[in-house]
Amino acid sequence: MAAETSNALRSRYAIVLHGGAGGDPKKLPEDERTQIQAAMQQALSTGRALLACGGSALDAVERTIRILEDEPLLNAGRGAVFNSAGGHELDAAIMDGRTLACGAVAGVRTVKNPISLARAVMTGTRHVLLVGEGAEALARTLEFERVEPSYFSTDRQREKWERAKRLAADAARTGQPVAAWDDEHKGTVGCVALDRHGNLAAGTSTGGTNNKLPGRVSDTALIGAGTYADNATCGVSCTGTGEEFIRHGVAKDISTRMAYLRQPLDEAVTHVIEQTLRPNDGGVIAVSHDGTIAVRFNTPGMTWAAADEQARFEVGLGHE
Amino acid sequence: MAAETSNALRSRYAIVLHGGAGGDPKKLPEDERTQIQAAMQQALSTGRALLACGGSALDAVERTIRILEDEPLLNAGRGAVFNSAGGHELDAAIMDGRTLACGAVAGVRTVKNPISLARAVMTGTRHVLLVGEGAEALARTLEFERVEPSYFSTDRQREKWERAKRLAADAARTGQPVAAWDDEHKGTVGCVALDRHGNLAAGTSTGGTNNKLPGRVSDTALIGAGTYADNATCGVSCTGTGEEFIRHGVAKDISTRMAYLRQPLDEAVTHVIEQTLRPNDGGVIAVSHDGTIAVRFNTPGMTWAAADEQARFEVGLGHE
Repeated sequence: MAAETSNALRSRYAIVLHGGAGGDPKKLPEDERTQIQAAMQQALSTGRALLACGGSALDAVERTIRILEDEPLLNAGRGAVFNSAGGHELDAAIMDGRTLACGAVAGVRTVKNPISLARAVMTGTRHVLLVGEGAEALARTLEFERVEPSYFSTDRQREKWERAKRLAADAARTGQPVAAWDDEHKGTVGCVALDRHGNLAAGTSTGGTNNKLPGRVSDTALIGAGTYADNATCGVSCTGTGEEFIRHGVAKDISTRMAYLRQPLDEAVTHVIEQTLRPNDGGVIAVSHDGTIAVRFNTPGMTWAAADEQARFEVGLGHE
Repeated sequence: MAAETSNALRSRYAIVLHGGAGGDPKKLPEDERTQIQAAMQQALSTGRALLACGGSALDAVERTIRILEDEPLLNAGRGAVFNSAGGHELDAAIMDGRTLACGAVAGVRTVKNPISLARAVMTGTRHVLLVGEGAEALARTLEFERVEPSYFSTDRQREKWERAKRLAADAARTGQPVAAWDDEHKGTVGCVALDRHGNLAAGTSTGGTNNKLPGRVSDTALIGAGTYADNATCGVSCTGTGEEFIRHGVAKDISTRMAYLRQPLDEAVTHVIEQTLRPNDGGVIAVSHDGTIAVRFNTPGMTWAAADEQARFEVGLGHE
């Protein structure tokens, strides 16, 4: 592509992050809110600086997500939810809108930054998705930073897990469905970026859903469900009730609405959030090929942050 | 839906199966060709009889795929390819076009019929995709028939694995890409059915790609990539170079082309095979909501079979 082989950088760039949809982050304890806000801000600054200097969207996505994975108050990397066996299984995916190259991992247990392993699957294997021990083996081969499984554990997530187990036990006893838990701040993380070469990239990373069955793979790790990018349309990262995002192929559907129905990004995102998904299913961040940023959710809140080459530098807690 | 709650059965039904795209099945040794043909015929008879009696598309899909999984000359269940560690890891998915409910498993090592486990994920858990040990645990809980990993091994696949390893070693030595191996009959299996209640279902099952890395998940197991069904449009099962089907979300794209671009099934399938995928990537079977059957591939051959409530009862080896 001409823009890539020439040295002429466009002025336009854009980056948007999320730290998960779910309960209203404004209701979090103030110290937690401040800490999440600081992590989002740090990630956004890093990503923006990289894009401003002509760095690639893929690098911006990977580096910002690494920062969010390291933040223990977000459900990705350190601070991941517990599965029903009391362990952590991490999922991540990344996609290059220029080539449609993509890589993903699921069920990772000892890799500090799953998003980087997802990128290694994309660039270093002929596969798209590696899970469990196979993904761990690649991390060992590539000498990725690995940690004890307990590194991912936090008291906060352990309390949430205990609560989820109680709700599940209540449901089993009464025969009712598991009580909805709408005030939880879920904390999957993601990033979409447009770089000054005109290339889009998207990535997502998560610990999955609280008290999930071992081996459960989230939409995050599934190209087209929770993560998608195509220079011709947009990049998308999703967060919420993963199974609904898989069923409807939400991330790619936003791209397809732009391609087939000629919907602008905002219309495509709004349709999916308001019509395709059920209330309280989750949220989406996206950037179109022209640098338009979209943030939409149908939960009480969503943590997000956005910046572009103009003055915009914004961290959102709750509102769109 | 009215059609489901009333006892009035429509006359229309349709079923289509595949046993994989790849090399021309007409070039297989005659005894192998005869055996594959017999398995396809048996599966088709079973599925057609079930649908003729008013059975559900989901049951037809599961039962026919079980028969194909048990056939050692097809790459699903018994007769699965070897991964690079010399083991077998099986993937399967199933989807209900009436409700968009879906279930899938990947990296299964001891479950005789992965398609049935995929259905159990759909009906018995709140998840869509379970992999590895987590999927095995569900099979144990449900007392599914389990087998020694060696049950899946055949001499034929072991020879193909040895050949694939030699080609990979040659490629590593010369620095060239791994030589294409176009004459291989790959043998993923799938089924799409429309029942007399007007409901569509689709399913796919595979051992994956020869000499794959352990932990590699195929498009087969990914809803929207290798498997999709929606009563509003069509059901689809794919086979071929899985990573390309993931990247382009092929199964759902066929459905979306019908929904958004108002393309008839045949046009949607033809576009994907001729324009979206690369030559030799694979093939697709599909049934539209009105019972139209489509079989298309861009490989030298594909094994398939189709029947409907009219006289059609056809087993295809190679041609469309």
